[in-house]
Amino acid sequence: MILLETIQAAHDRIRAHIHRTPVLTNRTLNGLSGVDLYFKPENLQKIGAFKARGGLNAVLHLSEQERYHGRTLGPVTTHSSGNHAQAVAFAARQVGTMAYIVMPRTAPEVKKEAVLGYGADIIECEPTLEAREAGVREVMERTGATLIHPFDDDRVIAGQATAAKELIEDAGLDKPFDVIMAPVGGGGLLSGTALVTHFISPRTRVVAGEPEGAADAILSFKSGKVEKAPFIKTIADGLMTSLSERTLGYMREHVTDILTVSDAEIGAAMRLVWERMKIIIEPSAAVPLAVLLKNNERFAGQKVGIILTGGNVDLGKLPF
Amino acid sequence: MILLETIQAAHDRIRAHIHRTPVLTNRTLNGLSGVDLYFKPENLQKIGAFKARGGLNAVLHLSEQERYHGRTLGPVTTHSSGNHAQAVAFAARQVGTMAYIVMPRTAPEVKKEAVLGYGADIIECEPTLEAREAGVREVMERTGATLIHPFDDDRVIAGQATAAKELIEDAGLDKPFDVIMAPVGGGGLLSGTALVTHFISPRTRVVAGEPEGAADAILSFKSGKVEKAPFIKTIADGLMTSLSERTLGYMREHVTDILTVSDAEIGAAMRLVWERMKIIIEPSAAVPLAVLLKNNERFAGQKVGIILTGGNVDLGKLPF
Repeated sequence: MILLETIQAAHDRIRAHIHRTPVLTNRTLNGLSGVDLYFKPENLQKIGAFKARGGLNAVLHLSEQERYHGRTLGPVTTHSSGNHAQAVAFAARQVGTMAYIVMPRTAPEVKKEAVLGYGADIIECEPTLEAREAGVREVMERTGATLIHPFDDDRVIAGQATAAKELIEDAGLDKPFDVIMAPVGGGGLLSGTALVTHFISPRTRVVAGEPEGAADAILSFKSGKVEKAPFIKTIADGLMTSLSERTLGYMREHVTDILTVSDAEIGAAMRLVWERMKIIIEPSAAVPLAVLLKNNERFAGQKVGIILTGGNVDLGKLPF
Repeated sequence: MILLETIQAAHDRIRAHIHRTPVLTNRTLNGLSGVDLYFKPENLQKIGAFKARGGLNAVLHLSEQERYHGRTLGPVTTHSSGNHAQAVAFAARQVGTMAYIVMPRTAPEVKKEAVLGYGADIIECEPTLEAREAGVREVMERTGATLIHPFDDDRVIAGQATAAKELIEDAGLDKPFDVIMAPVGGGGLLSGTALVTHFISPRTRVVAGEPEGAADAILSFKSGKVEKAPFIKTIADGLMTSLSERTLGYMREHVTDILTVSDAEIGAAMRLVWERMKIIIEPSAAVPLAVLLKNNERFAGQKVGIILTGGNVDLGKLPF
């Protein structure tokens, strides 16, 4: 169970290893949307994404436990083609242990290089969930590595919660946010965001954005069961995963709503952030702003915080 | 004459109207360069560039003087195809007066739109210095507008100085910067940077970067006279201007060195910042980092502050 103290402890644990990213405002986007917007640019975070927070909290927590028992932490492992791979590799380097990252052989070279750059080993596999999970099992048997799941883990969720915590603490508002928005993939960031908002800003609603081309969370949120997306086809490549029972549970308790947007709407919001805010965000990170612009009458005149989740995008493959 | 008090007063005057941009660090770039780097990302500033600071200080100062005499400030004018046009339009809106911006008809539509967005009037002219100056004279005669020069003005220079002031104040160093770097075009930012560094961090050297394709400042700096560039051809379109006697004077007193880089080196440094720091900078803003990477043995192990001057770039015309 995640309490406020769990999140506070996570924040204290990771603080020295991460950037306290700023809160950005932009008058043009306020004017365009009619909404008072506060952005938390986690593209400026270590590894270029909020996932550094959750990966670090899990690995540092494990390391503390081992130290308590007079041992040092052995290797860690995960499977990921994206930001969580870099997060675990980065976190392992922080505590001086080995990371084995199972990556589909189709993952972009630039992401593989980043993982190698943190001193981790890559185990390539076929680009299927089965092959990835088999790869991780093989690593665990061979090396005794501990699995760091990208979202189905309370330590990871508590780490991700610190982004919204900083946003609420640093925005300098005289009254609470009306809404805080985050995208939803596996639901780790959204769960953490919803939990910490419930604890420290209980009058604030939490609204999630999801791509139409990976619309499993909105179905699961309504039915109460973990559902699969009817189809998967989106430029928001960080949001293709389904939820877990754990993240769905947190979301059903503390999230107000999930809204979907098309790839065209995501691409337009992404371009707007590049042009107007002068920061590089990946398609997944543009989903909440796309939702807000599509439904802006619903948010008119409100104070809305948006977590910009990451900036790891291939400059050679832009959707505009 | 610009004193420390002049710059402090400028900072107090503009503070409520600008963003206090953060100080960014990046372990990958530190590793690549062997230098301990601290970036001041003025691409995140109002109008997407540091020029908001100088334009604001000049216009607010004029407005205060008029108020002292019981009058309100009349219209202001300038000629610019770039960030100074937006800066003056933005500043005029802050004090509720009219701005007439003389722009070459070849200026990008997106820049014209930004100026119009601040409520200013655009007067189009031929893309020559003569036509631009004639355009401003015509506006001044017709409307009584006051000229805000982009760099040959102590109020503008004192405003630009506040970027380095914040960098020095916010970097949180236990000993002073070894070097602070800025690009040089007309020399307004560089003069302000060198002056404030001399006042509040006197053991810090100030080093400028200039494109090989607009290499007038390095000649002027050596000869002591305002020289023209042998040729003008660079992607750093914000740095094509020559110095004035005023800026050359400040530079000869307080700048240590000027180093030049090619367009290829500028483009590579720009891409590095996009990919590693996840922020959008324009070619001119990449010049100091390009200089540092080209001469990195000279800066090895030092603490270096770099002003990233702006992010107003056409996403359709990237040099990579």
